[in-house]
Amino acid sequence: MRPILAEVVTIGDEILYGQITDTNTQWMSTELDKIGIKTVRKSSVGDQEDKILQILAEAEGRADIILLTGGLGPTKDDITKKMLCKYFDDELVINEDALAFITDFFTKRGRPMTELNRLQAAVPSRCTYLANKTGTAPGMWFERNGKVFVSMPGVPHEMKYLMANEVIPRLKTFFETPIIYHKMIRTIGVGESFLAEKIENWEDNLPEHIKLAYLPSFGQVRLRLTAVGTDEEQLRKDVDAEIEKVLPLIGSSVFGFDNDDLEVAIGKELKKQGLTVSAAESCTGGYISHMFTKVPGSSAYFMGSVVSYDNSVKINVLGVNVETIAQHGAVSEETVTQMADGARKLMKTDFAIATSGIAGPDGGTPEKPVGTLWIACAMEGRTIARKIQMANQRDTNIQYGSVVALNLLRKMMNGDYES
Amino acid sequence: MRPILAEVVTIGDEILYGQITDTNTQWMSTELDKIGIKTVRKSSVGDQEDKILQILAEAEGRADIILLTGGLGPTKDDITKKMLCKYFDDELVINEDALAFITDFFTKRGRPMTELNRLQAAVPSRCTYLANKTGTAPGMWFERNGKVFVSMPGVPHEMKYLMANEVIPRLKTFFETPIIYHKMIRTIGVGESFLAEKIENWEDNLPEHIKLAYLPSFGQVRLRLTAVGTDEEQLRKDVDAEIEKVLPLIGSSVFGFDNDDLEVAIGKELKKQGLTVSAAESCTGGYISHMFTKVPGSSAYFMGSVVSYDNSVKINVLGVNVETIAQHGAVSEETVTQMADGARKLMKTDFAIATSGIAGPDGGTPEKPVGTLWIACAMEGRTIARKIQMANQRDTNIQYGSVVALNLLRKMMNGDYES
Repeated sequence: MRPILAEVVTIGDEILYGQITDTNTQWMSTELDKIGIKTVRKSSVGDQEDKILQILAEAEGRADIILLTGGLGPTKDDITKKMLCKYFDDELVINEDALAFITDFFTKRGRPMTELNRLQAAVPSRCTYLANKTGTAPGMWFERNGKVFVSMPGVPHEMKYLMANEVIPRLKTFFETPIIYHKMIRTIGVGESFLAEKIENWEDNLPEHIKLAYLPSFGQVRLRLTAVGTDEEQLRKDVDAEIEKVLPLIGSSVFGFDNDDLEVAIGKELKKQGLTVSAAESCTGGYISHMFTKVPGSSAYFMGSVVSYDNSVKINVLGVNVETIAQHGAVSEETVTQMADGARKLMKTDFAIATSGIAGPDGGTPEKPVGTLWIACAMEGRTIARKIQMANQRDTNIQYGSVVALNLLRKMMNGDYES
Repeated sequence: MRPILAEVVTIGDEILYGQITDTNTQWMSTELDKIGIKTVRKSSVGDQEDKILQILAEAEGRADIILLTGGLGPTKDDITKKMLCKYFDDELVINEDALAFITDFFTKRGRPMTELNRLQAAVPSRCTYLANKTGTAPGMWFERNGKVFVSMPGVPHEMKYLMANEVIPRLKTFFETPIIYHKMIRTIGVGESFLAEKIENWEDNLPEHIKLAYLPSFGQVRLRLTAVGTDEEQLRKDVDAEIEKVLPLIGSSVFGFDNDDLEVAIGKELKKQGLTVSAAESCTGGYISHMFTKVPGSSAYFMGSVVSYDNSVKINVLGVNVETIAQHGAVSEETVTQMADGARKLMKTDFAIATSGIAGPDGGTPEKPVGTLWIACAMEGRTIARKIQMANQRDTNIQYGSVVALNLLRKMMNGDYES
């Protein structure tokens, strides 16, 4: 089976000039990868006639699949449809399905439909119209000499709708794509090279059709197993068997699988065990609370937190001893321990996490340089505090400190009080 | 003066297969735009010999400046340097400045330097070595037939260091770039089209050399004025004169200029007036606190907050009346008002913001659908509450709700209690 190659092209001045961030192409190439289609190039060009025609010709020369996004709005600076007509020597015709949908779209919203809106229902006569149920711009599918061209709107949720419901299913039919099965093991607290050493033997003995990738980020490493074959059920079994073998080697660093982020995995465990948590945040300034509460349903286990930025709040709300702060400072084992204990008592939870540190970029001293962070976690009868030393990147200190604090909670929930 | 054209090329399989998000190219094209250089294409290719040579040749045919990032790591899958040698028919030689820096880099960190690390100091003989003070991969500058090629590491902070300190200054010297002066007016609470109507006359009468762009995002609109000419001082004066004219038309929606985000602008004002703020967050779950505390120096005015996710925390910590919640519910004008008043009393601040709502995606009722958010702001003698109705996107509700709450604080600080 020869590899199927794709190019992803975004059209629009606003991406070229840096006015908006392109998140579409990453998402699209990930989706293509899942069905065994390799993205060989990504490009962005402006809304100019010659630029669009040029990239279409180039991409046709290199790839089997050309996915275009953008340039489908109703205004005259959006010219992708016109260019597709020119490229395929075709003409625009009103598509009745598209027109019915657009008419309904405006009727439902009680808004008048202009001629420009009506023209959004026009597509090149030779294309297959792909119904976009999320907006007024159409999806278009072209075939020529065994190659496929698809044009989609650049609005992310519209593009995603069309990819998931129309494009990916059609690509799987049009091309003979292999069955690909991915499974991700999520680990935290162990570096990539250290992890690689631990599982070297296992990795060397992986069957030919299973590949391993290390995806590190921010104190975490994702291990992605990818199996390629023809029988999905068998691939799943093969991958599961390998995971059974590798888990004992890396056990305590594994917090979840696939898309379960750390806060999601912890939330599931808290819910399962019927436990609750609260927080007392100083240097992380609310970020831990945000990590918990951005997860739907977190109100089942996250009771609340005190962001005790000023020492008066540590003292008056959390009950930290005035003497402790005077003697050891706010950034100390003693203070962070009392913060965790105080939050746990105040909010009557099974666990409480606390942080106190110097987030930076300024404010350090020789004894406590910028990036000194104390974290603690309290439970019935036991409170553990740890110091971590970061550098002077405020954002990183806030986010990394939050992740390390959550990981301390995770370990204590698992009865691991030492590592 | 003919336009100077640039292409931005990222090299690396990890971008192509969707494993990491490319934020470099947006940043780079924004920086180029500031000095009047137009990005005409962005591309990503993998770490393969033929792909890199192909894009180099294509880009040289289209643009005056070719900026490459990525593929400069020490491992064998990073081949950009080798490809540059091949493309320019050149060979790698150890650069003594680079070697001294790398040696020092490892010595300072007490880590052994391998042969692979030493080879990072090798660059093509004909290039100008651009000193990267933030890592071990070099920057490289090539000139050929009046065109410029630059190769930089893909690590964002290393690329940014090289762009700011080496590449942009050299481009301004090498090419005759126009003087461009940008000024951004930051507004909140007024939609793009409504804003456009208000300033239509002013916009129509802008001098020829000043252009206006509307950059909307998330309840905010940035108005970017761009002046092009030859005399920077004059451009600044011309733009300032136009801003003087437009401010009275849009006055109360303007919160700042240029890169001052809403939380930064509010922080400056609080600091200037010597005022303090606290928060009581339910549906925003710590996000408002995070917005405040991610700003360096925010401890001068942000005292802390209570994330009262569970009603028990609203009652026991913030002092919300049990009866109020029983009668009106947690998501109500009465509760959010008591939360703001409670936070203000508890943390002894001049202002306190509060939020309570149904962030979703589930949990709504016919009377209070998902996306119902109550926000409040309390000050001495006055507490104002407002209801906003959003949809069922949890992330958006959290972030937008936080912005609207901050804007209520901003307006009350300005003595605006009505709008």
